[in-house]
Amino acid sequence: MNVLVIHGPNLNLLGTREPQTYGAQTLADIDARIAHEAALLGVGVHCVQYNSEGAIVDALHAARGAVDAIVINPGAFTHYAYAIRDAIAAIAIPTVEVHLTNTNAREEFRRTSVVAAVCVGTIAGFGIESYALAIRAVAGATARSAN
Amino acid sequence: MNVLVIHGPNLNLLGTREPQTYGAQTLADIDARIAHEAALLGVGVHCVQYNSEGAIVDALHAARGAVDAIVINPGAFTHYAYAIRDAIAAIAIPTVEVHLTNTNAREEFRRTSVVAAVCVGTIAGFGIESYALAIRAVAGATARSAN
Amino acid sequence: MNVLVIHGPNLNLLGTREPQTYGAQTLADIDARIAHEAALLGVGVHCVQYNSEGAIVDALHAARGAVDAIVINPGAFTHYAYAIRDAIAAIAIPTVEVHLTNTNAREEFRRTSVVAAVCVGTIAGFGIESYALAIRAVAGATARSAN
Amino acid sequence: MNVLVIHGPNLNLLGTREPQTYGAQTLADIDARIAHEAALLGVGVHCVQYNSEGAIVDALHAARGAVDAIVINPGAFTHYAYAIRDAIAAIAIPTVEVHLTNTNAREEFRRTSVVAAVCVGTIAGFGIESYALAIRAVAGATARSAN
Amino acid sequence: MNVLVIHGPNLNLLGTREPQTYGAQTLADIDARIAHEAALLGVGVHCVQYNSEGAIVDALHAARGAVDAIVINPGAFTHYAYAIRDAIAAIAIPTVEVHLTNTNAREEFRRTSVVAAVCVGTIAGFGIESYALAIRAVAGATARSAN
Amino acid sequence: MNVLVIHGPNLNLLGTREPQTYGAQTLADIDARIAHEAALLGVGVHCVQYNSEGAIVDALHAARGAVDAIVINPGAFTHYAYAIRDAIAAIAIPTVEVHLTNTNAREEFRRTSVVAAVCVGTIAGFGIESYALAIRAVAGATARSAN
Amino acid sequence: MNVLVIHGPNLNLLGTREPQTYGAQTLADIDARIAHEAALLGVGVHCVQYNSEGAIVDALHAARGAVDAIVINPGAFTHYAYAIRDAIAAIAIPTVEVHLTNTNAREEFRRTSVVAAVCVGTIAGFGIESYALAIRAVAGATARSAN
Amino acid sequence: MNVLVIHGPNLNLLGTREPQTYGAQTLADIDARIAHEAALLGVGVHCVQYNSEGAIVDALHAARGAVDAIVINPGAFTHYAYAIRDAIAAIAIPTVEVHLTNTNAREEFRRTSVVAAVCVGTIAGFGIESYALAIRAVAGATARSAN
Amino acid sequence: MNVLVIHGPNLNLLGTREPQTYGAQTLADIDARIAHEAALLGVGVHCVQYNSEGAIVDALHAARGAVDAIVINPGAFTHYAYAIRDAIAAIAIPTVEVHLTNTNAREEFRRTSVVAAVCVGTIAGFGIESYALAIRAVAGATARSAN
Amino acid sequence: MNVLVIHGPNLNLLGTREPQTYGAQTLADIDARIAHEAALLGVGVHCVQYNSEGAIVDALHAARGAVDAIVINPGAFTHYAYAIRDAIAAIAIPTVEVHLTNTNAREEFRRTSVVAAVCVGTIAGFGIESYALAIRAVAGATARSAN
Amino acid sequence: MNVLVIHGPNLNLLGTREPQTYGAQTLADIDARIAHEAALLGVGVHCVQYNSEGAIVDALHAARGAVDAIVINPGAFTHYAYAIRDAIAAIAIPTVEVHLTNTNAREEFRRTSVVAAVCVGTIAGFGIESYALAIRAVAGATARSAN
Amino acid sequence: MNVLVIHGPNLNLLGTREPQTYGAQTLADIDARIAHEAALLGVGVHCVQYNSEGAIVDALHAARGAVDAIVINPGAFTHYAYAIRDAIAAIAIPTVEVHLTNTNAREEFRRTSVVAAVCVGTIAGFGIESYALAIRAVAGATARSAN
Repeated sequence: MNVLVIHGPNLNLLGTREPQTYGAQTLADIDARIAHEAALLGVGVHCVQYNSEGAIVDALHAARGAVDAIVINPGAFTHYAYAIRDAIAAIAIPTVEVHLTNTNAREEFRRTSVVAAVCVGTIAGFGIESYALAIRAVAGATARSAN
Repeated sequence: MNVLVIHGPNLNLLGTREPQTYGAQTLADIDARIAHEAALLGVGVHCVQYNSEGAIVDALHAARGAVDAIVINPGAFTHYAYAIRDAIAAIAIPTVEVHLTNTNAREEFRRTSVVAAVCVGTIAGFGIESYALAIRAVAGATARSAN
Repeated sequence: MNVLVIHGPNLNLLGTREPQTYGAQTLADIDARIAHEAALLGVGVHCVQYNSEGAIVDALHAARGAVDAIVINPGAFTHYAYAIRDAIAAIAIPTVEVHLTNTNAREEFRRTSVVAAVCVGTIAGFGIESYALAIRAVAGATARSAN
Repeated sequence: MNVLVIHGPNLNLLGTREPQTYGAQTLADIDARIAHEAALLGVGVHCVQYNSEGAIVDALHAARGAVDAIVINPGAFTHYAYAIRDAIAAIAIPTVEVHLTNTNAREEFRRTSVVAAVCVGTIAGFGIESYALAIRAVAGATARSAN
Repeated sequence: MNVLVIHGPNLNLLGTREPQTYGAQTLADIDARIAHEAALLGVGVHCVQYNSEGAIVDALHAARGAVDAIVINPGAFTHYAYAIRDAIAAIAIPTVEVHLTNTNAREEFRRTSVVAAVCVGTIAGFGIESYALAIRAVAGATARSAN
Repeated sequence: MNVLVIHGPNLNLLGTREPQTYGAQTLADIDARIAHEAALLGVGVHCVQYNSEGAIVDALHAARGAVDAIVINPGAFTHYAYAIRDAIAAIAIPTVEVHLTNTNAREEFRRTSVVAAVCVGTIAGFGIESYALAIRAVAGATARSAN
Repeated sequence: MNVLVIHGPNLNLLGTREPQTYGAQTLADIDARIAHEAALLGVGVHCVQYNSEGAIVDALHAARGAVDAIVINPGAFTHYAYAIRDAIAAIAIPTVEVHLTNTNAREEFRRTSVVAAVCVGTIAGFGIESYALAIRAVAGATARSAN
Repeated sequence: MNVLVIHGPNLNLLGTREPQTYGAQTLADIDARIAHEAALLGVGVHCVQYNSEGAIVDALHAARGAVDAIVINPGAFTHYAYAIRDAIAAIAIPTVEVHLTNTNAREEFRRTSVVAAVCVGTIAGFGIESYALAIRAVAGATARSAN
Repeated sequence: MNVLVIHGPNLNLLGTREPQTYGAQTLADIDARIAHEAALLGVGVHCVQYNSEGAIVDALHAARGAVDAIVINPGAFTHYAYAIRDAIAAIAIPTVEVHLTNTNAREEFRRTSVVAAVCVGTIAGFGIESYALAIRAVAGATARSAN
Repeated sequence: MNVLVIHGPNLNLLGTREPQTYGAQTLADIDARIAHEAALLGVGVHCVQYNSEGAIVDALHAARGAVDAIVINPGAFTHYAYAIRDAIAAIAIPTVEVHLTNTNAREEFRRTSVVAAVCVGTIAGFGIESYALAIRAVAGATARSAN
Repeated sequence: MNVLVIHGPNLNLLGTREPQTYGAQTLADIDARIAHEAALLGVGVHCVQYNSEGAIVDALHAARGAVDAIVINPGAFTHYAYAIRDAIAAIAIPTVEVHLTNTNAREEFRRTSVVAAVCVGTIAGFGIESYALAIRAVAGATARSAN
Repeated sequence: MNVLVIHGPNLNLLGTREPQTYGAQTLADIDARIAHEAALLGVGVHCVQYNSEGAIVDALHAARGAVDAIVINPGAFTHYAYAIRDAIAAIAIPTVEVHLTNTNAREEFRRTSVVAAVCVGTIAGFGIESYALAIRAVAGATARSAN
């Protein structure tokens, strides 16, 4: 099984960006954590980060035929980027929405997700572990690891 | 570590209730799945289900001093039961909000959570696995299992 | 055919509660009227009243396999108790929403029904006769009595 | 006792109009059903249908001094035709609002009734039987038939 | 100078319609009052009343080339009949909006006028005298009578 | 009969203020026009102008026992000065709201009047003649002049 | 193939009505243009115009079994006449919504279409050519003419 | 004179619950303070606390014929529990709404009270003293103590 | 301890102003009641009344260094006078908001208080006693009188 | 005459993207259809597709001096990309908005177009033919082909 | 060139008012800073401060013929004082809106300016320097100083 | 001191873009004006322009460690590009929002700024001089030039 992880805008600054909100770990730390979890579960994983909505749409398109599932943290695009929503709907690959923080507990504008309607599920608020949980979720690994 | 899992109204009907939406597994199946995951992680777990808002508030109160974390699926109460929100805030025990379905992708009224603001995080949309992921999330088990 | 009639909060005060709005008849009068109509139509009927949302959810659950139809006057719960809505949807028994007054003609907050979406129909504004009409409606009796 | 039944716009197409929503019976079927119920109850009844708001206003005006009660299904006019509302208020004849479907369970725009505020009550969702129940409601027949 | 006075829906019932709100005078009384005022000012006047929006649109169209000003009480159409608004804009004859009651002081829905934007002015709240004042307004008579 | 005319803020600039909107006549012209109309009708009249909400409230209070009716153009205060509204309600003297322009046809914020609910009626859109018509309205002069 | 073209309220005034907005061509010009385009495409066409909502509903009803497609410019009815919407849904004939102007670029109230939800498509903003394009659209002529 | 004091959900946790918001005093402290004030004023008082909406409705019902006034802090129920509102209206006993904090100065959802419309008055923001003031208010004691 | 009591617009008319709403007592009665309560509690008190927002802002400014607490009934200014809000915040003297009536139970516009966010607490609905309770509240007298 | 056709985000996936909504034809099919129609009308045409808002803005800028008209299907950007709106306004080339589906008949968020206000017209709902009709519209070809 | 600087309500308290928000400098400091900047640019300047909306309207009126530009910090009046807006529009002197803080980054109610629509521009968020920048802006000094 | 100036989408068209709104000066003129002002103040300055949101986010990221302040005119992105907002918050460099026009005085959608909350201040409405003022604002130059 192959999983594509897409990090949205500003996530490349993690570790230096508002650490009181987003924590001290860098994007490299996150990708290492994701790789570790994926290896543990026998899942192939590839991580990318883009600050441009168009680039994310392109990455989603390119994923067709290449991956079995997608984990996406759309960052600020979560709240208005309908083009990403349409891309997820178009490619028909199971997609999980991930957030470092519990977005429903923050500013009003962060409580609306325009991509939720086309995603399988949402995991938000667990910092770096949100990604690890999402890898398990898409891989069905949590269930299997119980055997 | 001890975890209390609270199931909200109508979840006792799982398996027979709108299976096209909520799946065929019963609440007993869910509790077994939770117990399995918890055992795997060396976490003590206790599951309860209530159809009454007051009973859930009471259960939250009783959890003080007894558990280290709470996993709650408030069901329909998610959308209006501010007394549950206040109870979670009052007891100051880390709490994770869980939903079987991706509530942000359903009817308008299901897209508002009045408890999110006082929860650590949210996991929604993975059916029975939402609970297993939540157990891992509160236990920090996902990270540890990587060692 | 068996019908369960559920009276919601404060309806136990009928006759003494704001008689200019709700009339002078007591809940016992209503239940007698319902019983009379049901007998006339050869329908079995059982009436209950609860002031607690959780108790109404429980009663709805217990109705599965026991009754063929439900008549419910959710009282003030009509306007916010989504747990009752979900319970009605879950049990999949034909349910009729009843009100003594024409709620759409009263205060703004009384013009929204969160249970309407999962009910067969609504009868409102005819005082005690709202219930008798509802018994006929669920029993199909009105039609048959024409033969 | 004499009752005027007013069918609003598009109801003349019943039977051919979206039968999955409105059923297979024609307006003639409905009028026959109404006549049957009225005869049963010893009530005189007259049925009319108009596609024009002005015609319905005229019919309501003409009813003064001629009928004891009105049953009206304003169809789509329910949601915006304040002139009909004012006409009902002006003539001061007890009027019951009727709908084939449970309008509160349909599209957002169908959940507002501008005539409800001037009607005695509402019966919605029982198909053709909505009218029969309304005849009983205005005639007080349901109660009397219990004797 | 010639003036057309258009009375909207339900105004034909004046005198019998909710007299506590609209007063005891009939439409004939109003038309007599208008005729008196017009005669006093040397203005030709013609009064019509319609319950149909289409008929009012037709009457407005027919006024082109025939009258110098229009006085209109659109009744309930005031609040939603954009076709009347467009008709007034289309014929480009100075038009005054008149109401018996002070509509801005009544129910919420009566506080919106969709025709105001294309009228010269508004006179509301003076009962039958609203019309007399409007005749003066369109005729410029009030000013002249000061000479 | 004595009438107090109150001009609200910025009306002292009339003639120089946005003449394309408010016309070329000065406040003195308006007061002369009002005096003329009042004299014609045998009505005593006194005109004042204030730019301060508090001063208008004071003037309204002082009117008790001194005048029989009030004509007020609250200017911009129309849209938010609830203290003026309460003052009009408190003194219980018949009051007419006047505007030079047809405020319902202008910017969105000008379409709300917080004083309308406590006024007898509204006259708007006739420029300087709005005042003359208002004098007639409060004096009942229009009607009498018909004799 | 037969097409019915329905012109809504005030369109009979075209050419004289606000020519800066709607252009200088008359309704006869439009009907001629439609006839020309239809002849070119071998399509039968019949054009009607009504100022009454009820008349438009009647015309839509009468179209059943008589025409293969409908082109409708509902004029101001576009924004509130749900009875027309229901009529289009009821007759189940492919219908195209047409506007002379680009309604989404005009006043706020013109940006809502209550009929769009039951139409095949919308063509707006091309003046008289909007109709010609619509004839091509319903006839499939544009595609065929490419052969 | 006898007064019933009803504490709503989560108030049993006072002293341990968010002390920076609600203070360090326990519910027992509050009840002692209330008893002291009541004794001072010669008023009989009884205090209860419930986490369930239904239990509060029951307590309100039971108060009929037993007490002369009610002091209620509905806690989070303040903002949505219309059943409590209806119960207060039904029993027709003078009721005062009390809050420890100034709810109008807190989160948006706490600024709406659905019970205010059926209460005599509101006292909010004075911590434990809010209750003492309320006892005085219902007892009329403040005034008498001035003698 | 010294307390400043500020009465807002129209309160000088008390006793004559809408007595069915505001009671028959005059402002002098209120000030006497306040003085009595203050004397009882050994509190110095000074009462002022203004109809102008600016005058109230000035009075609030002048209170700095002169008084220990403020009791304010902003009257209609409660609902829009942000300058008063900013003044209360600027002077940082504990301030209590008082209303004769229970404003949350009246017209929609009276349910918003723009000053609440900067006040210690609110007392509303007890007529003249609202002030006496407020004096106690700011003086801490209620508590002390219990000793 | 030269026309630029701009396809927005996700349109490159046509044929594979939600075919039940968008049809089975690919973007190449659409471009061929456009080329055919253009050739027929003697119009030069160039088609481009971008998933990035910035790239569309760039393409619009580059069109200045190069083309006589623009046909744009902004896809999801239709609903929020004000930068595209400003670009269309800035270049002042006649632009037609095109949609495959009737966007006003779909999800709420698709019913708002932020570019409509700066476009000549809109064609929506005719699938691939929407483009062909748009080519005709901008070329004025429909009219000419009638000769 | 002469410039009038108007400080709105509560600005006289600067230095002592919420220094964490508004800084430690007094109004005298600001006026000195303004005078310095004006002298530097050869501009005459006069500074006034008022807590009353009416006084500000009066000052604006008096400015006609006396000054070439106005700099105004309306304080809390920014958000609702339409009378000031009308005054600025009436006098037709170029006016710049100034704020010490970045009002768009503060509470919701501070994000609306009712005067912006009639001002040349806005400078907000630079503390005392907001005024100096505004003096430059109205004087055109910034540009000239570049020579 | 080094300052980065970022011009958002469509600003490269200045001079040719809607000159009646944005003026006749080109972006090169603006950059020259900025350079002049910066030189005058001894400030290093670098100007860039992008039509893509992602490119602006990238430029903001690259500014870390390289510049002391940022001046940004986000153009249309001002109103919805939360990714830019997050980028400004993430880099923690003082940033000033600039607009050529007074955006609060234009269309409704231009009155919301999603970046204001993370900017130091806003300067809008002074055309090309908005930038020069902003350079002064970030450089503290205005103040120093007074020495």
